[in-house]
Amino acid sequence: MDKILRIDVSGQEVKAREEALGQYAGLGGRGLTSTLIAKEVPADCHPLGPENKLVIAPGLLSGTAAVNSGRLSVGCKSPLTGGIKEANAGGQGAQVLARLGYAAIVLEGARQNEDLYVLRLSKDGVKIEKDNDLKMFTNYQLMDRFIGEYQKNGSMLSIGPAGEMRMANSTVAVTDPEGRPTRHAGRGGVGAVMGSKGIKCIILDGTGTKARQPQDPEGFKKANRLFGEGLKKHPVTGEGLPAYGTNVLTNIINEAGGYPTYNFKTGQFVGAEKISGEAQAELESKRGGNPTHGCHRGCVIRCSGVYVDKDGNYLTKQPEYETVWAHGGNCAISDLDVIAQLDRLDDDFGLDTIEMGATIGVAMEAGLLEFGDGERAIELVKEVGEGTPLGRILGSGAAVTAKAFGMEKAPVVKGQALPAYDPRAVKGIGVTYATSPMGGDHTAGYAVAANIMKVGGDVDPLKPQGQAELSRNLQIATAVVDSTGMCLFVAFPVLDQPETFQAMIDLVNTCYGLKLDTNDVTELGKKILKTERDFNKAAGFTVQDDRLPRYFKREALDPHATVFDVPDAELDQVFNW
Amino acid sequence: MDKILRIDVSGQEVKAREEALGQYAGLGGRGLTSTLIAKEVPADCHPLGPENKLVIAPGLLSGTAAVNSGRLSVGCKSPLTGGIKEANAGGQGAQVLARLGYAAIVLEGARQNEDLYVLRLSKDGVKIEKDNDLKMFTNYQLMDRFIGEYQKNGSMLSIGPAGEMRMANSTVAVTDPEGRPTRHAGRGGVGAVMGSKGIKCIILDGTGTKARQPQDPEGFKKANRLFGEGLKKHPVTGEGLPAYGTNVLTNIINEAGGYPTYNFKTGQFVGAEKISGEAQAELESKRGGNPTHGCHRGCVIRCSGVYVDKDGNYLTKQPEYETVWAHGGNCAISDLDVIAQLDRLDDDFGLDTIEMGATIGVAMEAGLLEFGDGERAIELVKEVGEGTPLGRILGSGAAVTAKAFGMEKAPVVKGQALPAYDPRAVKGIGVTYATSPMGGDHTAGYAVAANIMKVGGDVDPLKPQGQAELSRNLQIATAVVDSTGMCLFVAFPVLDQPETFQAMIDLVNTCYGLKLDTNDVTELGKKILKTERDFNKAAGFTVQDDRLPRYFKREALDPHATVFDVPDAELDQVFNW
Repeated sequence: MDKILRIDVSGQEVKAREEALGQYAGLGGRGLTSTLIAKEVPADCHPLGPENKLVIAPGLLSGTAAVNSGRLSVGCKSPLTGGIKEANAGGQGAQVLARLGYAAIVLEGARQNEDLYVLRLSKDGVKIEKDNDLKMFTNYQLMDRFIGEYQKNGSMLSIGPAGEMRMANSTVAVTDPEGRPTRHAGRGGVGAVMGSKGIKCIILDGTGTKARQPQDPEGFKKANRLFGEGLKKHPVTGEGLPAYGTNVLTNIINEAGGYPTYNFKTGQFVGAEKISGEAQAELESKRGGNPTHGCHRGCVIRCSGVYVDKDGNYLTKQPEYETVWAHGGNCAISDLDVIAQLDRLDDDFGLDTIEMGATIGVAMEAGLLEFGDGERAIELVKEVGEGTPLGRILGSGAAVTAKAFGMEKAPVVKGQALPAYDPRAVKGIGVTYATSPMGGDHTAGYAVAANIMKVGGDVDPLKPQGQAELSRNLQIATAVVDSTGMCLFVAFPVLDQPETFQAMIDLVNTCYGLKLDTNDVTELGKKILKTERDFNKAAGFTVQDDRLPRYFKREALDPHATVFDVPDAELDQVFNW
Repeated sequence: MDKILRIDVSGQEVKAREEALGQYAGLGGRGLTSTLIAKEVPADCHPLGPENKLVIAPGLLSGTAAVNSGRLSVGCKSPLTGGIKEANAGGQGAQVLARLGYAAIVLEGARQNEDLYVLRLSKDGVKIEKDNDLKMFTNYQLMDRFIGEYQKNGSMLSIGPAGEMRMANSTVAVTDPEGRPTRHAGRGGVGAVMGSKGIKCIILDGTGTKARQPQDPEGFKKANRLFGEGLKKHPVTGEGLPAYGTNVLTNIINEAGGYPTYNFKTGQFVGAEKISGEAQAELESKRGGNPTHGCHRGCVIRCSGVYVDKDGNYLTKQPEYETVWAHGGNCAISDLDVIAQLDRLDDDFGLDTIEMGATIGVAMEAGLLEFGDGERAIELVKEVGEGTPLGRILGSGAAVTAKAFGMEKAPVVKGQALPAYDPRAVKGIGVTYATSPMGGDHTAGYAVAANIMKVGGDVDPLKPQGQAELSRNLQIATAVVDSTGMCLFVAFPVLDQPETFQAMIDLVNTCYGLKLDTNDVTELGKKILKTERDFNKAAGFTVQDDRLPRYFKREALDPHATVFDVPDAELDQVFNW
């Protein structure tokens, strides 16, 4: 994993060039994507213009035997937020790419026409093929076309129609162990940047490659065992997530009164029980689906699952908590089959489920459809995939949809929709939403852990005190985890169990022959965040971009009758470490 | 003109309250709208939320006998730019409002429902009536309904469907001497803010009012005579504008190679001659229209006109140069009748012609229709008026349209479309576009005067040197003119003829009993600009918002093969006086 593959689309022929990591040595995942974007992409460029680049980077530990190290980072200047973006996906892609020796693929240059290209990477090098027959192919159609090439030892990274149409809500899909395009670098419209370079899909063939060898194999093996044990013994990663998936959160967040319902109007949904993880797992088991499944090989948490329809046929992967919320509670839809169909459409077209669900919530408030109308919601997502005028609005995300319909209430920060935790009732996550360089994003500093689950601390979710510090520490830690290739869920045991935290550091040290300590790790996280913040500042972001929409401070959320009241001055101290 | 009328829409009943000018005494027009917005509207509020206000203010000299003093300022936080906005209109409104004694109407508060209201102002006070029958009425339909009430001694201010739908491109229409809704506070979506307050129209009845009396009647009379003489003897205001209207510029700008064509792709249009002011005046005269007409009583320049169709029936007012460009050259449409129909639709729905034309140019580049397809362009504008999904996109302006269709090339600054002068070939106006607190706006500092027409100086339009200083001086002067209620065209003689400049100052001095000198006037202009800049800064604007889109620096414009090359550092010095 010591080379970068650059794909230059600016000539009459698309060209590949391999180069050494050079100045980027020692970086992986988000650390690499953000550093490269900050160095090579002018902050004031247009996200869909020739100066932007798309960087696809496995994490530092991806491709090794380290458990749960299969996360892939996709970075660029975001068409959705206008700031720097790292979107993170599971699936098989990171492992295969790392085993092929690539620290990153960089798509760059000025596209000359509307042609579409397929890239094929194997141990024998890179092949580039023009294939305009793939125009407007969905991700599952691409799977049907190419699965024979990657299923056994590889993976596919692809964009659906949304990315091809350069929609601000568009993903890069990554295939799971079954070869299905179910894992997505979802947020921030990274698919549109891939589309703007004319690359439809990247087929990774890992045949003949081996797991990356650590510098200190014995030490690595030991650290990996300790790390895996740590994941298995923690109640969240060892029990809750395997049994019910992320959707175990529905009942928890709803009971806490922080479950955004009716486009962030109230904090509890009467239909929550029906779409909870418990109900979902029961339904899947009954129908012959599978509630416990890993999104990539080497995962020991296995929070994903397989959702089958009434006849027992595969429909989609088990929708995540945020998806169930976005298309469910936020839209007052309490039918798991409807939610699963929406999830399938999102995956197929290449749409971020959070942004899409939040957008439909806005459309419901605008009066385009009734809250709870699942059938019409399905039609709307189909319009996005077809690129009808209404689909173009909705595919541009919640902020543009609100603007097009003349509404104040767009639940967004930096143009990106807020996820499944109301910031008024879970104020720590509100600080993360407001201040993360990524825009409204729960994964950037998952304060829900200490606010609600009492993991890694205990900070009252309803009080403003302590939230800024909580978010700061989590954002620093997350920037590091996102660079390792580790799934973010390792944070639960890492935050609670010092020996698991040490094992994670030891994995990196034994892999690379380093001697990092806790301080070094913290400094790395800070450095990444500073790089991202500096980029955003150069792109024109100010403290005003580190704010929730004003109505979250004005309108109280039931049942706690609480507004977002973390003072602006505290938000402005999050990165003042 | 010593009172403010506040209309509060936040209760179950809309309520009116009159108050003294108080802290706003001595301010008028843009000086008043910008000062009030900056003081009373939180910079970080949502433009369509309850905290925003719409301020409608005649100029300092409006309602007096001063010639050309009929301009009306409409201010708010802009739904289009997100910054402060003053949109400026001719027509009868300013004069009547001033004679009724109002320095401003302020629409404020949180609308409680979707009801529409009509306000009636007369010397007997204010009447407020709910009238939901007016929903989706166009401006001409409102004229038909209410002209009997205002034609003789009044005016009507109104929003069409665009404002009602709170589109980011939506105007406040002001009726002309014939009672037609042909003059518009066009830019920045001010109509949407009026719509967000539920006020459909404001009928002004000036019956029984008199012209405002100056403090020094004799001095005023003398200054007014000198001023009027100055306007008549200058070649632009005395000859060019009366004969051909603003459209006299088509041939001039096209010959200069600064006429944006094909969505700002080239600087000359082969069809320019056909849509020039000369051709337009000839056509109007032949058909029985009128190429020389004043948009308000008391105008001595008379640059407006009446456009009639082939049968001699009134179709619309004579489209302005910017309208002819936006719907004509920019879209490669060279048929004056098509342009006039588009102008009529814009006026009827309440759409800014510059933004609408630029938006259609973007749609053409996106492939929705061919360049030059006038019939389809007409259909598209109708979709905006109807609020179809495509209409919602287009009605949100050029920036949102480009975003919805995944395009880089949106010719906008601060989200507002650039007008009819390519900034690469007329670099002084490029500096104004980039730096004006208003967003892409030619009227904010009309450097075309010195760049092309050699009025008020001679600065080579193709060289970067001297443009920042030129724009600075013009922006300062314009902020003052926009506060007097004077038509901006007085700037031509004022810049060229010292005695006309003095006469303008004397008009203000004799009207208000003041002793302002040139320095005072300059300081007033600077103060207004600083107020606006400070508001924008608090709203989150940075130097990055004072830039043209990057592609104007990258892609050369024919025929001069020139890019926009005024250095960023000079742009950043425009307000460093």
